[in-house]
Amino acid sequence: MSKHPEGRQVKVGVLGATGTVGQRFITLLAHHPFFVIHALGASARSAGKLYPKAANWKQTTPIPAIVRDMVVHECDPKHFIDCAAIFSGLDADAAGEIESAFRTADLAVFSNAKNYRRDPHVPLIVPLANASHLSMIPQQRSLHQPPLKKGFILTNANCSTTGYVIPLVAMEKAFGPIETCMVTTMQAISGAGYPGVPSLDIMDNVVPYISGEEEKMEWETLKILGGIAQADDGTRTFDMHSRHPLRISASCNRVPVIDGHTMCVSVRFSRRPPPSPQQVREALVAYTPEAQTIGCPSAPVHAIFVHEEPDRPQPRLDRYYQDGAGVSVGRVRQCPVLDIKFVVLANNVSIGAATSSIINAELAILKGVLIA
Amino acid sequence: MSKHPEGRQVKVGVLGATGTVGQRFITLLAHHPFFVIHALGASARSAGKLYPKAANWKQTTPIPAIVRDMVVHECDPKHFIDCAAIFSGLDADAAGEIESAFRTADLAVFSNAKNYRRDPHVPLIVPLANASHLSMIPQQRSLHQPPLKKGFILTNANCSTTGYVIPLVAMEKAFGPIETCMVTTMQAISGAGYPGVPSLDIMDNVVPYISGEEEKMEWETLKILGGIAQADDGTRTFDMHSRHPLRISASCNRVPVIDGHTMCVSVRFSRRPPPSPQQVREALVAYTPEAQTIGCPSAPVHAIFVHEEPDRPQPRLDRYYQDGAGVSVGRVRQCPVLDIKFVVLANNVSIGAATSSIINAELAILKGVLIA
Amino acid sequence: MSKHPEGRQVKVGVLGATGTVGQRFITLLAHHPFFVIHALGASARSAGKLYPKAANWKQTTPIPAIVRDMVVHECDPKHFIDCAAIFSGLDADAAGEIESAFRTADLAVFSNAKNYRRDPHVPLIVPLANASHLSMIPQQRSLHQPPLKKGFILTNANCSTTGYVIPLVAMEKAFGPIETCMVTTMQAISGAGYPGVPSLDIMDNVVPYISGEEEKMEWETLKILGGIAQADDGTRTFDMHSRHPLRISASCNRVPVIDGHTMCVSVRFSRRPPPSPQQVREALVAYTPEAQTIGCPSAPVHAIFVHEEPDRPQPRLDRYYQDGAGVSVGRVRQCPVLDIKFVVLANNVSIGAATSSIINAELAILKGVLIA
Amino acid sequence: MSKHPEGRQVKVGVLGATGTVGQRFITLLAHHPFFVIHALGASARSAGKLYPKAANWKQTTPIPAIVRDMVVHECDPKHFIDCAAIFSGLDADAAGEIESAFRTADLAVFSNAKNYRRDPHVPLIVPLANASHLSMIPQQRSLHQPPLKKGFILTNANCSTTGYVIPLVAMEKAFGPIETCMVTTMQAISGAGYPGVPSLDIMDNVVPYISGEEEKMEWETLKILGGIAQADDGTRTFDMHSRHPLRISASCNRVPVIDGHTMCVSVRFSRRPPPSPQQVREALVAYTPEAQTIGCPSAPVHAIFVHEEPDRPQPRLDRYYQDGAGVSVGRVRQCPVLDIKFVVLANNVSIGAATSSIINAELAILKGVLIA
Repeated sequence: MSKHPEGRQVKVGVLGATGTVGQRFITLLAHHPFFVIHALGASARSAGKLYPKAANWKQTTPIPAIVRDMVVHECDPKHFIDCAAIFSGLDADAAGEIESAFRTADLAVFSNAKNYRRDPHVPLIVPLANASHLSMIPQQRSLHQPPLKKGFILTNANCSTTGYVIPLVAMEKAFGPIETCMVTTMQAISGAGYPGVPSLDIMDNVVPYISGEEEKMEWETLKILGGIAQADDGTRTFDMHSRHPLRISASCNRVPVIDGHTMCVSVRFSRRPPPSPQQVREALVAYTPEAQTIGCPSAPVHAIFVHEEPDRPQPRLDRYYQDGAGVSVGRVRQCPVLDIKFVVLANNVSIGAATSSIINAELAILKGVLIA
Repeated sequence: MSKHPEGRQVKVGVLGATGTVGQRFITLLAHHPFFVIHALGASARSAGKLYPKAANWKQTTPIPAIVRDMVVHECDPKHFIDCAAIFSGLDADAAGEIESAFRTADLAVFSNAKNYRRDPHVPLIVPLANASHLSMIPQQRSLHQPPLKKGFILTNANCSTTGYVIPLVAMEKAFGPIETCMVTTMQAISGAGYPGVPSLDIMDNVVPYISGEEEKMEWETLKILGGIAQADDGTRTFDMHSRHPLRISASCNRVPVIDGHTMCVSVRFSRRPPPSPQQVREALVAYTPEAQTIGCPSAPVHAIFVHEEPDRPQPRLDRYYQDGAGVSVGRVRQCPVLDIKFVVLANNVSIGAATSSIINAELAILKGVLIA
Repeated sequence: MSKHPEGRQVKVGVLGATGTVGQRFITLLAHHPFFVIHALGASARSAGKLYPKAANWKQTTPIPAIVRDMVVHECDPKHFIDCAAIFSGLDADAAGEIESAFRTADLAVFSNAKNYRRDPHVPLIVPLANASHLSMIPQQRSLHQPPLKKGFILTNANCSTTGYVIPLVAMEKAFGPIETCMVTTMQAISGAGYPGVPSLDIMDNVVPYISGEEEKMEWETLKILGGIAQADDGTRTFDMHSRHPLRISASCNRVPVIDGHTMCVSVRFSRRPPPSPQQVREALVAYTPEAQTIGCPSAPVHAIFVHEEPDRPQPRLDRYYQDGAGVSVGRVRQCPVLDIKFVVLANNVSIGAATSSIINAELAILKGVLIA
Repeated sequence: MSKHPEGRQVKVGVLGATGTVGQRFITLLAHHPFFVIHALGASARSAGKLYPKAANWKQTTPIPAIVRDMVVHECDPKHFIDCAAIFSGLDADAAGEIESAFRTADLAVFSNAKNYRRDPHVPLIVPLANASHLSMIPQQRSLHQPPLKKGFILTNANCSTTGYVIPLVAMEKAFGPIETCMVTTMQAISGAGYPGVPSLDIMDNVVPYISGEEEKMEWETLKILGGIAQADDGTRTFDMHSRHPLRISASCNRVPVIDGHTMCVSVRFSRRPPPSPQQVREALVAYTPEAQTIGCPSAPVHAIFVHEEPDRPQPRLDRYYQDGAGVSVGRVRQCPVLDIKFVVLANNVSIGAATSSIINAELAILKGVLIA
């Protein structure tokens, strides 16, 4: 993996460090070429304890040495002032106030929570899709009261949104606007955190509903796929794909799978005639997001891996490929109703959560947005 | 349950009696008000054995007393000449020749296999959807060489098709033609028979492909929802919904669920404006197929049970309602792309297989098509 | 099913009515020949609500009509004074105080909780095993301050204990004392209630530990298999099998099974030579507990169903046999270390919980202990 | 990892290369410091095909580059004459004749099949347990007709046996003979190969029987834990632990777990008083098999990892630790019937299968038994 350009390690903090996403952040950051874990934050119940005592560790690799003797703090900015980046795995009920307080303390927050995704000044970035939205950070800082020098909030997307927007962006880049998209998800239990889904609810079962998920997918996709518009007064806003209105219909289901969201997607392009399945396949393979070209160390080699077998991708076989940092697409074929349909698999705990935040932070460093 | 109108029991045979569908036929026929099991057929390997020795019984109820001392025969019509109806649970590789031979022997075959579903003279009947197609039987008999007095083949539909056409028929009846339908299935392992899906392929997994299934759903739906056209020479044909062309796109997935296919469906009506979700809900509740009005004893009380809870239907909770003879619909709501979307659950081993054949036979008796 | 001897219905109350065990009580009592549900109790949070609003109903059959318009009360005896029997599905943290208060109010409590199982005056009754312990009720009443006319507490056993003591009692009855027993359990998730076991903890997993379960199995078995001793002052006590000391070693595991505890058991008898596997099989088949001979309507026809197939019992295939009211035993064979080993399956939500309490109440009526 | 002492790579062949164990062999050998895959063998159906076409690859890592262009051969020794070691993942129905033919061709066969485990001249070696049994190879060669220079057959043990004999050996080494052992297994589906266990048989289920498994565990353990006796004529034989007779009782169950066999074990030592649980824990931690001291590159750092948490080991969390090459032990505690009971977890596809054969081959090289 490439070294941090300036050759020094960036101190980072992790909020919600004892939770599912926090544990994943710690696992990924333990041997990161840019970042070194400097402080851990969790709820008052965990504060003051050694990390191994505070966390109910559920990863398949042991607790990394670097946090084994670290004491967990409350999520107060004063414990994190030396951190150039804050990774937040906080739950939505805590993230709102805490992330705001951290930003006000001029800290750079990379959040996995939903609270600020709809904020008109906060970029909602899927790192393999819309890295260009990082350009909104300066305006966020300058409009803050008082204005900030270094602080900001940047969020990644919902785990389901993340997976399917990557091929959508690749397709729009190659073939122009998509005007219609239907998506049905089959989502893993780990997407609900821990303890999350009771086993009695999901074993030998499908739950055809995940609260708020369909709305998130339908809304977040527009912000991510959309561009940035500039008003006469110079203010820049997310255009929500409004120049080419895009209709999205999402149906979200929980299935008895541990990790990995599988999605059946169908799209219609504005362009007539639409691209053929083979052209789409080639465009997906060729897709190279900025996270790769700029050299983000956590970016996968294949942003989109395209399967030729008829029965792939499958979560159990494909979710850990490239440590879950890319997405897998298969069954690219004609849709009798729209133009093209396909299957996407995204590892919801990797690219769908912690890995996204980390690549976002790598992008922020490499693009000079993060002031370390 | 109502009695057979003529007060006597109709002798029936079961082909493929040792397999999954055959076991289900036997369970359902063991205490049936019209039918009495008279003969069992299976492969040469099983022939000559007592049924309990031949079958690897996998039902949760014990082997019914009536078949416990019955000897299994080969699937030769000579062993079944006393049977007024033959229920076939044969696999597709055997069903073609055997079912044809049984028909030629002037026997009435109710088949669960796919072989004759596309035959232009064979009705493809989902008993809660298109009982009217029974009217094609006389023509099938008269066109057979030599013409038949009693024999025919009648098939039920694929287990996935069956589940979602029932609400589609109810909607078309209330609101006129549907012009577009997108459906994504999450299908149970029992749909693949036994031994069927290896556990290593499906535990903690989704397989986004079932060979031939999407084509079946897209084709069978047209035959079932379509009407019957009459040519100038009097010949009657299935019109494949051609007066109102219907485009269907199906995406089929296998999920780790034992019984019960869950499907996310979205439809667009010809009629503008389309019905509201509430109007659709009411139409589904009000739907009363002929199988109910004519008094089929195996027809469910609720052909379509409509759930109001946001997270239903679920296979584990709802698949055994009414012994799996009806379907459950939930989450009827507006679709941002088409008109209405909803979730259907159908018990693939009941209404999706054996129960359908049995209600079809009940219909054939009550409508005078079956000559017992 | 037989009618209540005196021809009238006994009014009963259900505590913890909204929980898993409470829902099962309601399902079983809805059409009971002796009992009629008269009052429902739950936590303050549910009190005042209609039952369907208060309960998150998780059974596969719909909410019974009789409770659909019933208002849930707090668990205060004043709401239950007309009830001749109280079925308690309360959690252990609530059961202690509430069940005691109900007894003090002279009510007869049939508890599924662990709180009073070790009380020296409270019978711990597995209805297919030690119905004779009902004889301790009069002493419990007379020693209460103030003495009671009708009230008492009677508990059933832990769901794992229940399953394996039934064959143990049958064996002791036929062959005399067992002196050693080793048991390893594979327990269903429903044994932990709802929400109970997080899916992330048990999918594709075994958890080789259930807090307190091994101690319960080792202790409760002694109370159940033991007799009743009488002191010189006439006081009667449970003898804990002390005349023939019995050593038990239990290892308890949670496995990804929804309902049904499977247990591998090995025993050594005092008697030399020990019985053969065939003799044990015959003794198990012949075992007829008092609950059957006295005519308890919920008692199964086969207290112990003995399988001859090498691979049975299995929870998915056998747990619903006789509605889960009996136990299944299979693989009775010689043990190279002790004498005889075998596999037991017990439906933990039926005979392992609510069904036991109900048969206990039936026994109490038929033996004249319950004063209705 | 250490280098092969002589600095050159040893050419190896894999038989049954397309199957589950064969795929695992290939994955492990692809980057091995000693071995380089030189030839692949499979059934006639696969012979002549490129490996990726012949194998239905089910590993979570892609097909290694080294075999991607390799053509699969039939399992005839002529295709493998350049191989210094043959790893056999053949099924039992093919392994008997083929492995014998390879030995006769003077090839060294490391077999995962059961066929020769009971052969009095074939060592049955669990590499972390009884490496000393390699000393039987010279006698096997000399007694062969005609005598062999390099060829032999060496087998590893059944996957269940492998897991629990490692702590048993560690205990015997520290505390002397064990005289009694009771073990109940909860075995993963991957232990049955592919397609193996039908999903309809194991989802939401336990199957309390695995054909032949209990006999294997009870017999193989004696051969592995036993020593080597020498007759007056100098012939050496496996003594089957006969100097200290050991009684073993095994109960084997299949559970819905993908990888990793969990076992509840209880043992009684000859020595009175027996060691305490703490002494046992320390002995397990201290256990250092020859495979470690001699420097086998695939040996784990911890042959036995001892958990202190009350609820570990668990297959999902612990099976991939050290790439599955060691075993995990937890819950070491007193047994009320025997002396000590504990839980063992072994990854059945790693140390329970392919990894064992590979460490056995490493031992054979490092101890000079394998003539490369």
